[in-house]
Amino acid sequence: MSDHQYLRTWIGSSDADTITIGGLDLARDVMGSMTLTQLAYYLITRRRATDAQQRMLDAVLVSLADHGLTPSALAARLTYTGAPEAVQASVAAGLLGAGSVFLGPTGDTAVFLADAIANRALGADAPDDAFEAVARDAIAARRAAGTRVPGLGHPVHKVEDPRTPRLYALAEQEGVLGPHLRLLRAVASVHAEITGRRLPVNGAGAGGAALVDIGIPPGSVRGVVLIARTAGLVAHLAEEAAQPIGMPLYLEVEHRASDA
Amino acid sequence: MSDHQYLRTWIGSSDADTITIGGLDLARDVMGSMTLTQLAYYLITRRRATDAQQRMLDAVLVSLADHGLTPSALAARLTYTGAPEAVQASVAAGLLGAGSVFLGPTGDTAVFLADAIANRALGADAPDDAFEAVARDAIAARRAAGTRVPGLGHPVHKVEDPRTPRLYALAEQEGVLGPHLRLLRAVASVHAEITGRRLPVNGAGAGGAALVDIGIPPGSVRGVVLIARTAGLVAHLAEEAAQPIGMPLYLEVEHRASDA
Amino acid sequence: MSDHQYLRTWIGSSDADTITIGGLDLARDVMGSMTLTQLAYYLITRRRATDAQQRMLDAVLVSLADHGLTPSALAARLTYTGAPEAVQASVAAGLLGAGSVFLGPTGDTAVFLADAIANRALGADAPDDAFEAVARDAIAARRAAGTRVPGLGHPVHKVEDPRTPRLYALAEQEGVLGPHLRLLRAVASVHAEITGRRLPVNGAGAGGAALVDIGIPPGSVRGVVLIARTAGLVAHLAEEAAQPIGMPLYLEVEHRASDA
Amino acid sequence: MSDHQYLRTWIGSSDADTITIGGLDLARDVMGSMTLTQLAYYLITRRRATDAQQRMLDAVLVSLADHGLTPSALAARLTYTGAPEAVQASVAAGLLGAGSVFLGPTGDTAVFLADAIANRALGADAPDDAFEAVARDAIAARRAAGTRVPGLGHPVHKVEDPRTPRLYALAEQEGVLGPHLRLLRAVASVHAEITGRRLPVNGAGAGGAALVDIGIPPGSVRGVVLIARTAGLVAHLAEEAAQPIGMPLYLEVEHRASDA
Repeated sequence: MSDHQYLRTWIGSSDADTITIGGLDLARDVMGSMTLTQLAYYLITRRRATDAQQRMLDAVLVSLADHGLTPSALAARLTYTGAPEAVQASVAAGLLGAGSVFLGPTGDTAVFLADAIANRALGADAPDDAFEAVARDAIAARRAAGTRVPGLGHPVHKVEDPRTPRLYALAEQEGVLGPHLRLLRAVASVHAEITGRRLPVNGAGAGGAALVDIGIPPGSVRGVVLIARTAGLVAHLAEEAAQPIGMPLYLEVEHRASDA
Repeated sequence: MSDHQYLRTWIGSSDADTITIGGLDLARDVMGSMTLTQLAYYLITRRRATDAQQRMLDAVLVSLADHGLTPSALAARLTYTGAPEAVQASVAAGLLGAGSVFLGPTGDTAVFLADAIANRALGADAPDDAFEAVARDAIAARRAAGTRVPGLGHPVHKVEDPRTPRLYALAEQEGVLGPHLRLLRAVASVHAEITGRRLPVNGAGAGGAALVDIGIPPGSVRGVVLIARTAGLVAHLAEEAAQPIGMPLYLEVEHRASDA
Repeated sequence: MSDHQYLRTWIGSSDADTITIGGLDLARDVMGSMTLTQLAYYLITRRRATDAQQRMLDAVLVSLADHGLTPSALAARLTYTGAPEAVQASVAAGLLGAGSVFLGPTGDTAVFLADAIANRALGADAPDDAFEAVARDAIAARRAAGTRVPGLGHPVHKVEDPRTPRLYALAEQEGVLGPHLRLLRAVASVHAEITGRRLPVNGAGAGGAALVDIGIPPGSVRGVVLIARTAGLVAHLAEEAAQPIGMPLYLEVEHRASDA
Repeated sequence: MSDHQYLRTWIGSSDADTITIGGLDLARDVMGSMTLTQLAYYLITRRRATDAQQRMLDAVLVSLADHGLTPSALAARLTYTGAPEAVQASVAAGLLGAGSVFLGPTGDTAVFLADAIANRALGADAPDDAFEAVARDAIAARRAAGTRVPGLGHPVHKVEDPRTPRLYALAEQEGVLGPHLRLLRAVASVHAEITGRRLPVNGAGAGGAALVDIGIPPGSVRGVVLIARTAGLVAHLAEEAAQPIGMPLYLEVEHRASDA
């Protein structure tokens, strides 16, 4: 086996005296200078975030960090019930449900919008009807394939997801309201026109669009969501240690199931 | 089953119009105002970080985000090789190795130091010999139990871990160099005196001490590390998608194993 | 919340004196009477396996239990390197890569074949040309959608996967060579005819077809594979504890990456 | 890097024509000849199970495969709610809670008993008082260290765990009632004598003792349990797909938490 060249990474390395991360000296250039959000942006995109990009990224991350006693938080807490000594296992269990139904939709919306825009000269400043035309095609393709249009509707926030107008306002204010956020708005309005039923842009979808607009590759959006959710899960596990839900929930479920 | 009161959480909740997180209105009070680091601190400690605490937390988080092609990064990449469609599974696989050998030592050091200090009036401004006395007892207890003293030594950074002096300098500069960081330094010097072999304070241990000094509960330190590491893993998976290591590594391993 | 009726399961329950599993008394009717394979079949299908079905299920399970130092085994071993105290985390890490590329193809083939047969009166004794007609349609649909035909070809076993003829012979001998195994053979021959390139039926695909032929629901095939693989992973971890691969592999990778 | 010799495994390998597993030809010597249970025993111990060992191993495995809507099954189902397309993630989430509280006790008991017996000539046919003496020392050591004696007591089966007498009877009948099962019985009786409170030997503990008596290395017992539990989890996920618990449970929890 002579070609060992595949074993290389830009992300990190170290020798006896130095730790390098994305080509930067960790101790000298990163610690004390960059926030975790800035470093995440840098490692994923290989560019430094502008102030606007970084504020927008933080806004999206905090919007996705937690949503209460979701299936994800419950799975983490129930895992902690069985294995409190291995907290990494509980966090991992909480992340594993980030799929097509929960948490995944942020990434799905990002990919949907990016694919729709690809190969079209659709700048952030294109006229509204250009976005509507693209939206029309993208929705038609989904409907033809029998798959859902992502980014719309929410089981709880039926009229408006409170995160959505906030993300649009922040993007506007920071000057990063780009083509993906604009296309998503067009998708919602064309979708309402076609189906006769208005579904609001959900916070997951708006977050996905905003991430692509600030330069996160669409394929990494699903991963970026996990950084935020890990923070929420760690908080749930700290609370679980002090005030358990997993064990009494199990006992109640067992009790009710055996009466059923 | 009448007592359903156990089903409550301070962390998050939502209704049709509002999402609340730690008692704050997510859209109004958190998005656009807090970084992910600030939110993580707030959700875990239930207090807002001071500027100094937040800068210190970011410094520790970025110091732990990545360390190159570690077992954790390799496990994530090899999982991606088999299941590229489920990126949450790859991130989870990468976190699962955060145990007693890798990544866990940050939390182990935090708990070790906090236990040693517990029930003693050992303020950040106590004299050096008070810290040395506590260190002596704590080391003796470990040696009696036949277990390792955490936070010391590193397989690569044999003389000095570059993260350690940087963390101490930042803590000093931010005015948060507290009893846990001081105790850890005393542990290193007493340990050298007892064993005749100087092991440097490693970056994992210094990070754990620093987190407790800024108010992270020792039991949550192991979880906090995972937030940072998730960011590193997401970057590794973005790179893996573009420039795979998992598949050629597997093929090389298979090839060499069948020749062995 | 008045409808609590959703909290019920057929699979298992217990009270102070009894444990019930699939309606059977565990201690009296299952322990000492059923093998794990028989119990798995029973719990998944809610029917007892015939002797032939059980022998076939065991043959498929052992054929999928291990394949050497695969990405899955390596991810488990590297996780063990970091967290040897939490063996469940290592097994979980090994299973997480069972996706579209590795291990998943058994389930994908099962679903592909079952969908192709659905709604057609295609019994195990239908003539060859009936199977070929169904195969032709199913392949055409895949090619139109631009997706792969599953169950064919193998990176190592380029001419013949040794598991395939064995599974067909056993199925024949046990009298359970059903429509899914027959259709898969037709798929291989029609595919060769259309593409001009003969790809052998692989063991993963033949296993998936065989499982559906003995009554495993196609949607559960992907899960059934994991039972077998867990056995292989536990063996790898026992070996890893005695004769480590994870740590030297990491050190070699690090060394080569820093020279690259 | 010249020593590549560490990359070898006894467990499995393959070349273009053959797949080898534990030195056996998979297609010729294993498929159609061995059950999954027999193969698991063989790969873990590197010996073929006798008929008695194999029947005992199956009895223990089926006794641990499922226990209803446990935290483990609930975590798997809630993960499926979010990511139904990645069934391996749900199975992994279910396994991750196999720790010190749930499922781990089988392995903990195995290790506890094996350590107590180590270095003593305590054959299966030693007199009762020899076992009681060893039990007395082992319990004393646990009490001195402030840790629990494993294998005793059960939250539901307070008087007798129905699996325990069945395992002892089967072991007797198969001629494999060895020193670990005998010691565990002595532990229960000495423990009752010392504490004045009779705790029954639980099924998890008896299973762990039985596995060591048939030759499973104590350190692999915790892993062996996972093979059985994977079978139970796959059945839960098949049921979850048809008759969901995860989503209504989440909605009920959310509803009750927001009223709390």
